[in-house]
Amino acid sequence: MDEFDIETISEPDLDEPVLIEGLPGVGHVGKLAAEHLVEECESEPMSRLYSEYFPPQVTVTDGCAELACLEFHAVTPEDGPDLLVLTGDHQAQDTVGHYRLAERLLDVADSAGVSRAFALGGVPTGELDDDHGVIGAATADEFITELEDVGVEFREDEPAGGIVGVSGLLLGLGARRDLQAACLMSETSGYLVDPKSAQAILEVLGEALDFSVDFESLEDRAEEMEEVVRRIQELEGGMNVPSDDDLRYIG
Amino acid sequence: MDEFDIETISEPDLDEPVLIEGLPGVGHVGKLAAEHLVEECESEPMSRLYSEYFPPQVTVTDGCAELACLEFHAVTPEDGPDLLVLTGDHQAQDTVGHYRLAERLLDVADSAGVSRAFALGGVPTGELDDDHGVIGAATADEFITELEDVGVEFREDEPAGGIVGVSGLLLGLGARRDLQAACLMSETSGYLVDPKSAQAILEVLGEALDFSVDFESLEDRAEEMEEVVRRIQELEGGMNVPSDDDLRYIG
Amino acid sequence: MDEFDIETISEPDLDEPVLIEGLPGVGHVGKLAAEHLVEECESEPMSRLYSEYFPPQVTVTDGCAELACLEFHAVTPEDGPDLLVLTGDHQAQDTVGHYRLAERLLDVADSAGVSRAFALGGVPTGELDDDHGVIGAATADEFITELEDVGVEFREDEPAGGIVGVSGLLLGLGARRDLQAACLMSETSGYLVDPKSAQAILEVLGEALDFSVDFESLEDRAEEMEEVVRRIQELEGGMNVPSDDDLRYIG
Amino acid sequence: MDEFDIETISEPDLDEPVLIEGLPGVGHVGKLAAEHLVEECESEPMSRLYSEYFPPQVTVTDGCAELACLEFHAVTPEDGPDLLVLTGDHQAQDTVGHYRLAERLLDVADSAGVSRAFALGGVPTGELDDDHGVIGAATADEFITELEDVGVEFREDEPAGGIVGVSGLLLGLGARRDLQAACLMSETSGYLVDPKSAQAILEVLGEALDFSVDFESLEDRAEEMEEVVRRIQELEGGMNVPSDDDLRYIG
Repeated sequence: MDEFDIETISEPDLDEPVLIEGLPGVGHVGKLAAEHLVEECESEPMSRLYSEYFPPQVTVTDGCAELACLEFHAVTPEDGPDLLVLTGDHQAQDTVGHYRLAERLLDVADSAGVSRAFALGGVPTGELDDDHGVIGAATADEFITELEDVGVEFREDEPAGGIVGVSGLLLGLGARRDLQAACLMSETSGYLVDPKSAQAILEVLGEALDFSVDFESLEDRAEEMEEVVRRIQELEGGMNVPSDDDLRYIG
Repeated sequence: MDEFDIETISEPDLDEPVLIEGLPGVGHVGKLAAEHLVEECESEPMSRLYSEYFPPQVTVTDGCAELACLEFHAVTPEDGPDLLVLTGDHQAQDTVGHYRLAERLLDVADSAGVSRAFALGGVPTGELDDDHGVIGAATADEFITELEDVGVEFREDEPAGGIVGVSGLLLGLGARRDLQAACLMSETSGYLVDPKSAQAILEVLGEALDFSVDFESLEDRAEEMEEVVRRIQELEGGMNVPSDDDLRYIG
Repeated sequence: MDEFDIETISEPDLDEPVLIEGLPGVGHVGKLAAEHLVEECESEPMSRLYSEYFPPQVTVTDGCAELACLEFHAVTPEDGPDLLVLTGDHQAQDTVGHYRLAERLLDVADSAGVSRAFALGGVPTGELDDDHGVIGAATADEFITELEDVGVEFREDEPAGGIVGVSGLLLGLGARRDLQAACLMSETSGYLVDPKSAQAILEVLGEALDFSVDFESLEDRAEEMEEVVRRIQELEGGMNVPSDDDLRYIG
Repeated sequence: MDEFDIETISEPDLDEPVLIEGLPGVGHVGKLAAEHLVEECESEPMSRLYSEYFPPQVTVTDGCAELACLEFHAVTPEDGPDLLVLTGDHQAQDTVGHYRLAERLLDVADSAGVSRAFALGGVPTGELDDDHGVIGAATADEFITELEDVGVEFREDEPAGGIVGVSGLLLGLGARRDLQAACLMSETSGYLVDPKSAQAILEVLGEALDFSVDFESLEDRAEEMEEVVRRIQELEGGMNVPSDDDLRYIG
């Protein structure tokens, strides 16, 4: 294996697709949203990317071992543009690897004809409430205006710590290649896997790109999580803050 | 020294050998099992692999210093196929090193004519009991069926965290070279060096490969460990869980 | 992107400029001082340096994402020599990266005609008092003498731990290229962003290079910080040392 | 600067010199011993080795900044063979760097005609007593026998954790180049800089190589340290073990 190794699975003919990235992160919001698109729309796995910057690890499903990888999917919603959706469970393990991985992902997007990208994620609020505002960051002012029109909020100093990892670098390195890229971050407690927050992002994204997608499975999952939250709040009684050990990424 | 440096010790003529990997890990199960094969069967050291990814360290035995390395042995049990057994005390020290080491080990196996590999290890149960079921993961469905026939269990979500390090990558990277590879993991407490668990793995492996090996020395060692366990359980009295400090890797 | 990537913004004609480096550090003294020069004098951004050794991160300002970088500015004070001022928020993330980044910064300085450099920083005293002596370190004895004449103190064993990061390497690697380089470190508590300490350094630097700069904005900021200190000292009452959590880099 | 950069200071004509390595470590024994040889015998600095694997740091002495480096000295005691003595304050900062640094040091030794090397260090006993036995490890059995004759002890399982860093790799990588190398480790508390332990090593080394060196300055320093130990033992009273904070590397 080289630094990166790309295995082609299929070569569907996508028409100027929009790149959608959803890797694990706060509330697994980006990952849930991207996987929901793959499951609910017509989709086809296109390629797998392996890298010596990923954890030296196989996952095992029903006894079958699979090497750590990211996956590109060709997704064609009924309306709107074609999508190139990036999913997976890993990010690079060191600084240099992060940069090189992001460059390689952008290469794949380039060769698929991508000129627009959305990185999806969550922004932690520390509160278990129902608000799921979608905050944005983008590479260009005209893109900001366009996204404000569909309800994305661009705030003066948020997210305070910037955006780290693949999502951040898709914007930072993408801008240097004239890719029009935005990161959409939905508010989420940060304590739980948050399907509602994923839905909030997909609603905004659908409005931006003129596609619609069925949310039933996400809503079902959200109800399960709300039941978990209710039970936690009952348990809490006089407690102010749920303990991280009890709550983190139940789901 | 280069990134890797292979020192040839002998060049025995192995006939389509099966690769057996047993490096240190949970309960030292894989290491005990692989070393037992080397000691009990006719065997010959073939080569040593040095690497700048190993700890910068020499071990000292009777005053003699030896550089960190892994060792390949030609092992020819009375029955069954020839074996290429990999032993040693080290894994790579960083992510990239893990991938490159596994690729290099697979190169050595390739050039020795290996088309089948078994990575041996332990899976921690947290319990000091006598059960030593052997759980498996493999690169291909037909291999899974074959191993189920000799008693290997393939469970839906185990091992939960996947398989990390050389054992995992022998499967993950091996599959990409059409190597038929499996990881056999014997249940073990995780608190103690576990010769019984090593024996359980070798029994399954012997059945899969049609060889037999004497277990007397492993049984002797297992009895010593059981004596240790008995003393610990007496000490425990009302205690629920043995302390990690007292128990971890006594042996 | 390569290991380093330099984006030229403008190519002003600087006459044998002096390099001034001010990256984040103790009391943000160097950063405040360098940014003050850029803001108060006639200045022009010249180039941005991106690197895969920087954190894999974008900062977001008013919704606009910007990739981690350092920035060179052409600064031309009314008196004194032209200045090449280096500002930014990042240092390299690993050892090798530090060396390579410093070499690349020195390459940029070389090609701009730099033969003299000042690294600016703070040295922590642990005390919230008004003293802002400027301690120095330099690459050559004649430079030491020259700086002693403008009030820089060269002490036998200070700074005790040497100078780490870009500031240290500008001297250490600069000396090997015959660059005349000095590090000016102003005493500061280490608990707070310290505009007064930045002013102390700029006063010494102005005397060394025969330029003057208006300090009003730094003095305003210093007054705000003094108000913070006063409030902290009132709160302290009988306490001896302000807690790190309350004080560190308020500003 | 490249990965390594060697600056030649002088080119004395050494006759088949013996390499002596003494970098910082347990009780600073190796460092004290090597520096004592440089100070007490006729000696001349030969070269400095800089590396991007060293800490990104300059040390400052009387205001003068010096980049992290190791130094080779030509040392010619009145009797015995010529010596090539390696001193300095740094080791490599990562695994790969350790291997590459050791290889480069061995290259320098090779080109100076070295065929024998001694790595000097301390082995911690945890006890503040007067015993300073010298334990050894070597690359070849005949070298072990020779060193046993001058009082070096080779024990079955010591040092238990092997030998890590430059000292270990000089043996491990040296053996692969047919260098006859030994590590001499003098027993020391591990709590204090230990000039007596350094003297013990130099006595054994002097006997092995037929040279003698004056120990007055080491004895003076040892007396100062003994005074420190006495004061600590008085303070201790009923205490069993001196606290690490009080004792570690006072000197």
